Amino acid sequence: MKDIILVLAPTKSQQIEAIKNIATDYEVLLQDELEEADAERVRIIYGWNNSDDFKALAATFSNLKWVQAISAGVDYIPDQIKTSNDIYVTNASGIHAIPISETVFAYILASNRNLFYSQIAQTKNEWDKPDPTSFKSLTGKSILVYGAGNIGEEIARLAKAFRMNTIGVNTSGKEREHFDQMFALEKSQGAISQADYIVNALPATELTNDLFDQSFFNEMKESALFINIGRGQAVDEEALKKALEEDKIAGAYLDVFKTEPLPADSPLWQLKNLLISPHITGVVEHFRDEIFPIFEENLVHFMQHHEPIRNIVESDKGY
Amino acid sequence: MKDIILVLAPTKSQQIEAIKNIATDYEVLLQDELEEADAERVRIIYGWNNSDDFKALAATFSNLKWVQAISAGVDYIPDQIKTSNDIYVTNASGIHAIPISETVFAYILASNRNLFYSQIAQTKNEWDKPDPTSFKSLTGKSILVYGAGNIGEEIARLAKAFRMNTIGVNTSGKEREHFDQMFALEKSQGAISQADYIVNALPATELTNDLFDQSFFNEMKESALFINIGRGQAVDEEALKKALEEDKIAGAYLDVFKTEPLPADSPLWQLKNLLISPHITGVVEHFRDEIFPIFEENLVHFMQHHEPIRNIVESDKGY
Repeated sequence: MKDIILVLAPTKSQQIEAIKNIATDYEVLLQDELEEADAERVRIIYGWNNSDDFKALAATFSNLKWVQAISAGVDYIPDQIKTSNDIYVTNASGIHAIPISETVFAYILASNRNLFYSQIAQTKNEWDKPDPTSFKSLTGKSILVYGAGNIGEEIARLAKAFRMNTIGVNTSGKEREHFDQMFALEKSQGAISQADYIVNALPATELTNDLFDQSFFNEMKESALFINIGRGQAVDEEALKKALEEDKIAGAYLDVFKTEPLPADSPLWQLKNLLISPHITGVVEHFRDEIFPIFEENLVHFMQHHEPIRNIVESDKGY
Repeated sequence: MKDIILVLAPTKSQQIEAIKNIATDYEVLLQDELEEADAERVRIIYGWNNSDDFKALAATFSNLKWVQAISAGVDYIPDQIKTSNDIYVTNASGIHAIPISETVFAYILASNRNLFYSQIAQTKNEWDKPDPTSFKSLTGKSILVYGAGNIGEEIARLAKAFRMNTIGVNTSGKEREHFDQMFALEKSQGAISQADYIVNALPATELTNDLFDQSFFNEMKESALFINIGRGQAVDEEALKKALEEDKIAGAYLDVFKTEPLPADSPLWQLKNLLISPHITGVVEHFRDEIFPIFEENLVHFMQHHEPIRNIVESDKGY
């Protein structure tokens, strides 16, 4: 009986063929084609399924050697897989940097230029000119980005094109391209009050739980905007709600939440100066074409060396 | 009796003092301080007032030598002033390039990333994920910009930062920085169908009346967006309405209109896939500080040479 490659990611038929041509000794199955009796033969998973049913089934994959995730963050993959010394987890870090960065600037620019305000006025057929002092421009403004990986660097690169000052935060404080200044996380406190825009692009780890809390929002400029495109667990949502209600900060944009989907009765929905989107900043225009080369390169390597070659998640760090 | 400098532009008190220090032989008056009997002494106007009353009064300024406008386009200044060989008109070309360009990308990015869609879903407390195929990214896309002056060049500069192809149109077809290709207006027809985004940044002249008409919109890609941040008279609004209703193009953003304010009963307001804003893309964050140096430099020169030195509008071209 052949080992199985289980394909859960969106995949084109010619990509399935490519997998079969690379992994000639394997059986390639979609989720619908997998029966419980096959569980012990699953060796490789491309993609993931976050349902409880699948997670229970996956716990029986005793032969599992590698999961190729299709997201940058892999917090949703069970710890027993991520911390296993026998199982590789690889991520899709890199392909989401451009769409996420473009979405960050979509929010900042549309907010600065009052386009969300205009959209609402338009529904009422109203020629409603906002106060001229409410329009902002990016030249000379400062952006503080938590997380200076692929996403953070692309945000900083665009920020420089908009003639901004760029400040980055990572674990080491080590210099990264496109950042004028870098701070290690534990030494970054002083940067908060300098920033006009603050973006969380950190992966979810224990270090980032409720990192953005009441004392953080109190440090921010009253004119500043806060943006979370990392993970929901990093933000104390109650504290952010309070900061927005009390005008401690000018506005916020959340794409990720502690509970997703955000429940319909959440008080966040109706907060003024908060924009909510349903975890979509990373959506890639040609997703199946952009993610597949990462899996393909890893798969070729795996066939020869029994391990993937790129985007390997470090089991102790979780990213 | 001294000649008068009439100040209609928003001006700080220390800027008024600066004017008085430069133009010691002049009387400096705000509009409220001007009496009809003073009309013959008005020599210089800083700013403009587009009311019929003021235009009637201005027609009696027989001693008028120079109008410093605070906008890039000066179409609203009466022809008898613009075409007079005795009167200089200077504009504010340059200071609006950054806010206008930032607004163009605000619209493009927010549209591409479905943020206007998310804002509407949020009003209904709905976690409503748009179709993944509706998300766009800018890498490799083409932007076609009509008008390659300060505004067009700044749009192209940002477009290059977003890894786009840039195509420009001006009267001569002469190369301009940040544009990969340039066309003269009469030879630009072939570029229309190549573009994913089309921006009108042309000044209002006879050549541009209804330049963007039904045959133009028919040439556009069905997936393309049209943006007018130039002047309203360049767009055949009826033809654009038809193109949007019949999905000939994917969307449009208009900041300027044939009639402003856009009447409350205009059918444009409720068009889906059209964003309307009330002629605000050029609003400068620190307006009084950015416009004043242009006037100041011209005023210093005028005191010595009886003419301004920069941003002089050519009376035959109107820009």
